[in-house]
Amino acid sequence: MRHLIGIKDMSKEMIASLLERAEFWAQRPGVQSESLRGRFVANLFFEASTRTRFSFEVAQKRLGAHVLNFIPETSSTVKGETILDTVRTLEDMGVEAAVIRTKKDGLFEELADQVNVQLINAGDGTHEHPTQCLLDLLTMQQQFGKLEGLTVAIIGDLRHSRVLGSHLYGLPRMGAQLLLSGPSTMMPPAEVVPAGVKTVEIDEAVKTADVVMMLRVQLERHTNSLFISKDEYHQAHGLTLERVQLMKPDAVIMHPAPVNRGVEIHTDLVDCERSLIHKQVTNGVAARMAVLEALLKGEEMQWERSLATAQ
Amino acid sequence: MRHLIGIKDMSKEMIASLLERAEFWAQRPGVQSESLRGRFVANLFFEASTRTRFSFEVAQKRLGAHVLNFIPETSSTVKGETILDTVRTLEDMGVEAAVIRTKKDGLFEELADQVNVQLINAGDGTHEHPTQCLLDLLTMQQQFGKLEGLTVAIIGDLRHSRVLGSHLYGLPRMGAQLLLSGPSTMMPPAEVVPAGVKTVEIDEAVKTADVVMMLRVQLERHTNSLFISKDEYHQAHGLTLERVQLMKPDAVIMHPAPVNRGVEIHTDLVDCERSLIHKQVTNGVAARMAVLEALLKGEEMQWERSLATAQ
Amino acid sequence: MRHLIGIKDMSKEMIASLLERAEFWAQRPGVQSESLRGRFVANLFFEASTRTRFSFEVAQKRLGAHVLNFIPETSSTVKGETILDTVRTLEDMGVEAAVIRTKKDGLFEELADQVNVQLINAGDGTHEHPTQCLLDLLTMQQQFGKLEGLTVAIIGDLRHSRVLGSHLYGLPRMGAQLLLSGPSTMMPPAEVVPAGVKTVEIDEAVKTADVVMMLRVQLERHTNSLFISKDEYHQAHGLTLERVQLMKPDAVIMHPAPVNRGVEIHTDLVDCERSLIHKQVTNGVAARMAVLEALLKGEEMQWERSLATAQ
Repeated sequence: MRHLIGIKDMSKEMIASLLERAEFWAQRPGVQSESLRGRFVANLFFEASTRTRFSFEVAQKRLGAHVLNFIPETSSTVKGETILDTVRTLEDMGVEAAVIRTKKDGLFEELADQVNVQLINAGDGTHEHPTQCLLDLLTMQQQFGKLEGLTVAIIGDLRHSRVLGSHLYGLPRMGAQLLLSGPSTMMPPAEVVPAGVKTVEIDEAVKTADVVMMLRVQLERHTNSLFISKDEYHQAHGLTLERVQLMKPDAVIMHPAPVNRGVEIHTDLVDCERSLIHKQVTNGVAARMAVLEALLKGEEMQWERSLATAQ
Repeated sequence: MRHLIGIKDMSKEMIASLLERAEFWAQRPGVQSESLRGRFVANLFFEASTRTRFSFEVAQKRLGAHVLNFIPETSSTVKGETILDTVRTLEDMGVEAAVIRTKKDGLFEELADQVNVQLINAGDGTHEHPTQCLLDLLTMQQQFGKLEGLTVAIIGDLRHSRVLGSHLYGLPRMGAQLLLSGPSTMMPPAEVVPAGVKTVEIDEAVKTADVVMMLRVQLERHTNSLFISKDEYHQAHGLTLERVQLMKPDAVIMHPAPVNRGVEIHTDLVDCERSLIHKQVTNGVAARMAVLEALLKGEEMQWERSLATAQ
Repeated sequence: MRHLIGIKDMSKEMIASLLERAEFWAQRPGVQSESLRGRFVANLFFEASTRTRFSFEVAQKRLGAHVLNFIPETSSTVKGETILDTVRTLEDMGVEAAVIRTKKDGLFEELADQVNVQLINAGDGTHEHPTQCLLDLLTMQQQFGKLEGLTVAIIGDLRHSRVLGSHLYGLPRMGAQLLLSGPSTMMPPAEVVPAGVKTVEIDEAVKTADVVMMLRVQLERHTNSLFISKDEYHQAHGLTLERVQLMKPDAVIMHPAPVNRGVEIHTDLVDCERSLIHKQVTNGVAARMAVLEALLKGEEMQWERSLATAQ
C-alpha cells in the first residue's frame, strides 16, 4: 500500500487485513513497540483537531516512531509555500509518512503521484476520513464478531460528512447494509450514494439497525441555514431518550465525536451501556497503528505472514 | 494518590514523602530514567505558559514518558467540546495523566470524580499551584535543612495569587511561620487566610524572614486599577537595593518567576548571591518528577520502599 | 565551540571539520544515533518557520536528544519576560542547547556571554544563517569534490538576506570566488561586502558560475517598494528557461527555499537535473547533526579523533 487516501480504493481483503492487525494492537493496550524505531512521521493538520491528531500521535509513539507536529499558524506556509512543497521538503529531510488533514477536496489526488512520502488521509474536505471508517468497522466487528450482514444506520448531518464519505464505500464492501437518515436539507447528493444504500425515516432506522451511528451536526456550517433550534433538532432528528427505546435489544450506539450533547444525541446516552463511543476512541489508536505499519512495514509484514503460514 | 489537585488536601507526611523523592532527583541532574517508559502524559495548558509547561515536559521526558502537548488554538475545543470530554478522550486513547493549567476556578473538583486519568494541577484560576509550592518547599529545605520553624514572608500581589493559594496551606502544615505583606488593595480576602498567618509591613517582613518570597505583580490584571507607576510600586512595595539590606545574614530571596525586573524586585537582586530563583527553576523539574512518579508508580514505589526497609 | 552564532567568527579549519562530520551523517541517511541520549535541546523560533525548525528537530531526534519546541504565541513572553530570562530558565531546567530564530539583529551577541546554554543561530534578523551556509557548502563539496576555486554566484534579493550574510564570510574563507547579482535596489550595502567579492550583471553571473544560487525575493518586505510585477522581476532578475541555457555544462542551481515559483526561478527548474535544491534540504539535517554534536560533544569528539589518529 503506497498511501491511505480513501476507503473507495480499497479491496475487501485490504480492509480485512488492516482490521486484523488493528485487532492485534487493540488486544495489547499500552504496549510499547519498537516497530518504527528511528523512523519519522509528520502530522500536518491544516484544520483544528484534538482527537484525531492525538490518536495518530499516540499510535506513532507506541510504534516507536519519531513524530513531527506541524502547527499551521507558525509555519512558512505563510510565506506562500504550497502544501506540495512542504511535503517534499519533509521527504527530503527523511520523513517517510505524512498524516494530513485538510479542508481542500482533492488534495490527496493532486499529491499522490508527486511525492514519495506515504500519505495518510486524516480527513479531506467533504470526501473521506478513512481511519475513522476503519476504527468504526473494528468496533463493530469486536461487538458482533463480523461485519457481513450487519445493518448500520448513519443518521444526522450527512451532507458534508467525510465520515459518511468513507462508510458509503466501506460498509457495503464488507457486506453490511447501510441505512441513511436525516433532515432533507442534510442528505448527501443522490449521485454519491451507491446503489443498495437506503434512505429511511429516523424511527425506522433506529428500529432496524444493529448499529445506530449518530453524526455530529456541524453547527459551524449551519448557523445561517438551520432554521430550527438545537432542541427542535434534537426532537426531530436526534437520538432522544424516547427514540432509543425503539432500538433492538443488542443494537449499539456509535458516534465519531466530538459530540454535541443534547443536539444529535441526548447527553445521558453518550456514556450509556449501549454506547460504544469510548471504545471507538480507544480503537482509533489501534486502527492507526495498523495503518502506519501497513504503509511503513508493508513488505516486511507480508513476508512475516507468509513465513508464519509456511510453518 | 489519585490526583494532585491542591496542597490543601495533602497531609504533612504526603508532602514530606514527595519532597524526599524530589530531593532524590535533584541530586541526579540530567539523569535519564526509564521509570515511565511507554506511558503517556498529556499537557493541557489553557493559559499561556513557558516555564511550567517546559518544566513538566522535561520532568516527563527524563522519566521516559511519552508527552502529548495540547495547543488550545489548534484544537477541537473550538468545536465546543468540553474539557471533560477532551480529558475522557485522552483517557480512552491510553493517556494516564493530564497536567492541566486553566483559568477556571473549580475545574479540578468538577473533573476529579468523572475521569480515570490522573490529574495534575499546573495552576487553576486563583486557587492553587501545588507543584510550585512543592518546589519552593524543596528549595527551602535544601537551604536550611528543614522547614519546621522557618519564617517565610510572601510579599506583593497576593490577591489573585495561586502560588500563595498553595503556600497558605503548605507552609503552616510543614511547621513554618508565614508572614504576608503587600499593598492593601492586593491582600487576599481575610476569609481565605488561616489562623496563625500574620500580615505585617514590608520592612518588618523583610527584617524578620528567613525566606523573602516576592510575588510577581500581575500587571495584566492591574492595568486599570493600579494608580501608581511601576517605579512607585517598586519603592513602596518592592525589594529595593535599600530594603534588601534589612534582611538577616542568612536569609534568602525567592520568586516564582517570571520576574518583573524593577517592579517587585530590583533587577540586580534576581541573580545576586542571596537569590535562589534559579535554584527554584531547577528544583521544579525534580519536584514534578516526584509528583509524576507518585501518581503513576505509587503502589510500586511503596512496595519498593517497604522492601528496602525490610532488608 | 561554545556557540554557533555566525560563520564570520569561524576559521577555515572549524568549517572544514564541521563539513567532514556532516558528510559522515549525510552518508548514513535514516540512521538512529544515541549520541545525545537523555540530553535536552530547545527550539525557540520567534519567526515562522517550517523547514528550518523541522530540519533541526529531525537532526536532534536522529541524535537521540530530547526536543522542546517553543511556540511563541502560547508562551509567557506574553507576560513580558525577556528572551534572556527565557533562555536562562531553560538552562536552569537542564536544557543544554537552544536553537534560536529571531527578527532581532544582535540578539546573540547580547546573550552569548550571559548564558551557559549553547546557542545555535537559526537565522537572526538580517545578519546570518550559519547552518544554511554550512549545508550549502556541504552540497557544493559533494558535487565538486572541493570548495577551493569554485565560482559561486548569489543572485536576487541580497539586501536583507541572512543567507548571503553567512556566505559573504563562508565562501571566501573556503577559497571560493563569490559573485553577486541583483536589482540595484536589492544589493547589500557596500560596507558589508568583503574585498574580493564582485558584483556583476545577471547574465555574466549565470555564464561564469559553477553554482548559481538564486535567493528568494522576500515579497513581504517589498510589497510597497517593488514597482514591477512578479513576471517583470522574473524576466529581468530571475533564472528563466532562456537564461539557464547560459550556464556552464557542469554548473548547478541552488536555492535556500522556500521558492517563489515563477519569480526568482522558473517553476520547471526547481526539480530539473541541474537543481540541487532537494539535496540541500537533505544535507540540512546532516549539517545540523554535525553542529549539535560539535557543541554538545565537542571535547569527547576531539578525544575520539586523536585516539583514532594515534592508532
